Amino acid sequence: MDTKEVAKKVVELVRKQAWYEALDALYDDNIVSVEADPGAPETRGKEGVRGKIDWWVNEMEVHKFEASEPFVGHDRFVVQYDAEVSEKKSKQRRQLSEVGVYTVKNGKIVREEFLPRV
Amino acid sequence: MDTKEVAKKVVELVRKQAWYEALDALYDDNIVSVEADPGAPETRGKEGVRGKIDWWVNEMEVHKFEASEPFVGHDRFVVQYDAEVSEKKSKQRRQLSEVGVYTVKNGKIVREEFLPRV
Repeated sequence: MDTKEVAKKVVELVRKQAWYEALDALYDDNIVSVEADPGAPETRGKEGVRGKIDWWVNEMEVHKFEASEPFVGHDRFVVQYDAEVSEKKSKQRRQLSEVGVYTVKNGKIVREEFLPRV
Repeated sequence: MDTKEVAKKVVELVRKQAWYEALDALYDDNIVSVEADPGAPETRGKEGVRGKIDWWVNEMEVHKFEASEPFVGHDRFVVQYDAEVSEKKSKQRRQLSEVGVYTVKNGKIVREEFLPRV
């Protein structure tokens, strides 16, 4: 798959919240996943990302999860996410607005960075 | 300036279409500027980017140029641009929707990539 095809597939799967399917189909074994949070900036490897998904699925109730159409150039693509979630423990409801910046190599995602709106 | 401050300044200047001011204040001498267009992918150096701005200002009539609030994480930020322009020669009017993905080092932009919506 080229970058545009990977991007379209990410958007399709995220809109279904099919996180594990996206991981298995589209991610490189040596994926580097970066959060803006200075406390936990970087996760390496597919099993590390699987752990992030486990955390998300266990901790969050998702009321809404929207993904934009992708923006694509060369080996990079960007998707904007707008979500409304509650932490299951605290029941605290909040809005999330961020972009994912993805890098593709040989048809697989090798890097993803999540940047919140400031 | 940290990444967030650079990002805020880019948005402020782009909204005024103050391209040259942004270049002089915020860009590193060794800036690499990347377009999605496969024909002209990469421009290197501040004077190269000045040439791109000259081209833009000379060729384009800008009817609308909107910049989103920035998305920021670590050394990276993303801004979405929605514009309506006409080429001065052809008078052909068109919509542009793209993101800029910027990398900041020592308070200056060292890389920018423009990714159109697909």
